Amino acid sequence: MFQVNENYLKLPGSYLFATIARKSREYSQAHPDRRLISLGIGDVTQPLAPAIIQAMHEAVDEMGRAETFHGYAPELGYEFLRNVIAKQDYADRGCQVEPDEIFISDGAKGDCGNIQEIFAEDSRVAVCDPVYPVYVDSNVMAGRTGDYDAKTGTWSRVIYMPCTAENGFVPQLPEETPDLIYLCVPNNPTGTALNREQLKVWVDYANKAGAVILYDAAYEAYISDADVPHSIYEIEGARTCAIEFRSFSKNAGFTGVRLGFTVVPKDLMCGDVHVRDLWARRHGTKFNGAPYIIQKAAMAVYSEEGKAQLKEQVAYYMRNAKLIYDGMKAAGYEVYGGVNAPYIWVKVPEGMTSWDFFDYLLENANVIGTPGSGFGPSGEGYFRLTAFGSYENTVEAMKRIQALSK
Amino acid sequence: MFQVNENYLKLPGSYLFATIARKSREYSQAHPDRRLISLGIGDVTQPLAPAIIQAMHEAVDEMGRAETFHGYAPELGYEFLRNVIAKQDYADRGCQVEPDEIFISDGAKGDCGNIQEIFAEDSRVAVCDPVYPVYVDSNVMAGRTGDYDAKTGTWSRVIYMPCTAENGFVPQLPEETPDLIYLCVPNNPTGTALNREQLKVWVDYANKAGAVILYDAAYEAYISDADVPHSIYEIEGARTCAIEFRSFSKNAGFTGVRLGFTVVPKDLMCGDVHVRDLWARRHGTKFNGAPYIIQKAAMAVYSEEGKAQLKEQVAYYMRNAKLIYDGMKAAGYEVYGGVNAPYIWVKVPEGMTSWDFFDYLLENANVIGTPGSGFGPSGEGYFRLTAFGSYENTVEAMKRIQALSK
Repeated sequence: MFQVNENYLKLPGSYLFATIARKSREYSQAHPDRRLISLGIGDVTQPLAPAIIQAMHEAVDEMGRAETFHGYAPELGYEFLRNVIAKQDYADRGCQVEPDEIFISDGAKGDCGNIQEIFAEDSRVAVCDPVYPVYVDSNVMAGRTGDYDAKTGTWSRVIYMPCTAENGFVPQLPEETPDLIYLCVPNNPTGTALNREQLKVWVDYANKAGAVILYDAAYEAYISDADVPHSIYEIEGARTCAIEFRSFSKNAGFTGVRLGFTVVPKDLMCGDVHVRDLWARRHGTKFNGAPYIIQKAAMAVYSEEGKAQLKEQVAYYMRNAKLIYDGMKAAGYEVYGGVNAPYIWVKVPEGMTSWDFFDYLLENANVIGTPGSGFGPSGEGYFRLTAFGSYENTVEAMKRIQALSK
Repeated sequence: MFQVNENYLKLPGSYLFATIARKSREYSQAHPDRRLISLGIGDVTQPLAPAIIQAMHEAVDEMGRAETFHGYAPELGYEFLRNVIAKQDYADRGCQVEPDEIFISDGAKGDCGNIQEIFAEDSRVAVCDPVYPVYVDSNVMAGRTGDYDAKTGTWSRVIYMPCTAENGFVPQLPEETPDLIYLCVPNNPTGTALNREQLKVWVDYANKAGAVILYDAAYEAYISDADVPHSIYEIEGARTCAIEFRSFSKNAGFTGVRLGFTVVPKDLMCGDVHVRDLWARRHGTKFNGAPYIIQKAAMAVYSEEGKAQLKEQVAYYMRNAKLIYDGMKAAGYEVYGGVNAPYIWVKVPEGMTSWDFFDYLLENANVIGTPGSGFGPSGEGYFRLTAFGSYENTVEAMKRIQALSK
């Protein structure tokens, strides 16, 4: 009789967003006259930029003619796209990344979830707490995380690095030595970032400890501080210890278009094995290339016209971020993030849990956010608001929340 | 010090198509006056049908307007697409498949490669020989396949089911009991199929043995015989033992567009665990939805206009298949497949290996095919030709091959 992967059965239910949806629905049904505003979503709302739309139309037309039709894409992705990424995202920032170290994919979520496959089964994993759930869950599925303690919400073999107001949301080097270290900078959910010096500590540590940093830079486009690096390869030594994930979801609104890429430098070695070659083998075996149309759309992201349009789009969201940051501060809250990321991380009032505050805002301001405890135990006592709503809704939400504290 | 997944290091190099490309290139360089014709590729060449192009343009425009913009897609795929699949691919053929048993993905290759993850690490795997390499390689990566014997080209823990002219390319029930059985019908590379009765034997066996059939139906659109089922769910009992993979690559030319789906019936249980729920969890954790634009393109595949256009496209390729089948027969070869699949499987002449025959055709007819031995040990002595070239090239290739035997 066949058996299933028992590790899947250890996973606790993933109820965060389902619970938010249910509570919002129930409130709406009980109060049909109230208009709820959601600042809880991590999804973009602005339409694709005109340059991207035009590039897609052109690529669609190419697919309709035999002379310009494109079948299977090259496994790593089209060279035209890998070349422009190597230049604009890396060479222009002084980083050395070769086009054949870049793997185009259908998005960073899959890559972040799949990367653990190429490492040993007994690898020790370190994550920040709070954290994007995919890092931990994908390692649970692979059987690396030990047992789950429902009381603390932690796994016995995972090394947790708390990131709270007390340490300025900067993870501290762990006592136990991990093999794989997940870092998300700028951070989801806290909206905070690491500067050059802080990141250098991690690169040096990883090289010394023989660990790999899995660096999720999905929110890179939102960085405004000059001393926050856009890529981990801006830090000397990163090529021997770091893999970087990039996404087009948040800088270009591709959440429903799907495109991302992963950089695995050839200098990242385990003995005489190039980790890059393992990822290439995985990519070639379990993935069949990103759509031509969408790789062409990504080219528009790097065009002068596209860059100008997307700068405006990011600025639109970051105006919301500032509105929320300032608005919550004015309402008397301790507020973090929001400067280098589209997320604002609010300390909930003394005596309330994250879920208490959710209920409080839902019932009194008709505003929906995300309880920080949904991202890990150290997220308890915090609350995430996102800048991805419309400007008008964001203004109105802040007005309502400020009215409560008057 | 971090360690890599050692199973990856056991994988022998994947040189089949690279070697074909090198030999072809070298021949061309030595004989610049000769025009090579490739009947070796598994990629389509006809452009996307007009109905699909139109649907994509419309969807692109939707993505450019805030009111109709689409962010993250639902994890299982859009309901509009799952509903039409449930009706047209299943209900209309008398099969019971619910929309929430259908998981839209970016293609069948990924799903075929990823499905093994949700089963136990020590599962015994059975494959046909010759076989699509992804089934075996993805299990090698997961550490299920034991040791590789370079002399025989086989893995010690894999159960091989030879499919040759001697058994009419019908795999025989294995002596050892497998947990997972990969079947690809119509078959790549042999181009042969299983009829209802032959498939029923497998469904009954799997239910009795407690095995799961992983049924790759990527070439379903090419079936012409009435007694070859289009879906395994046409067979009674399949809902308790089978997972089915479908692709839009070959029926609609989506090799560079990327879309597919996998069906996991709720009746497929391991104790009290629904296998469907495990796949849903994997899909939700390591995948982030197929692009809206492409799911809309797939809707055109099911429209009356689209169906008429794609029927012509499949007929175009199948005319090539018949040309190759008849042409090779007329040239004196033993020929298989080509009736329910776009692949023609040719027995190479006595005394030649698959690679000898490759060289013979390359040098004497300037025609490129794929050596059968590249698909597994029982593929030795065979040669794959595909119907995905242009009509004109296919005619010319047959003319050249027939001239050799005169």
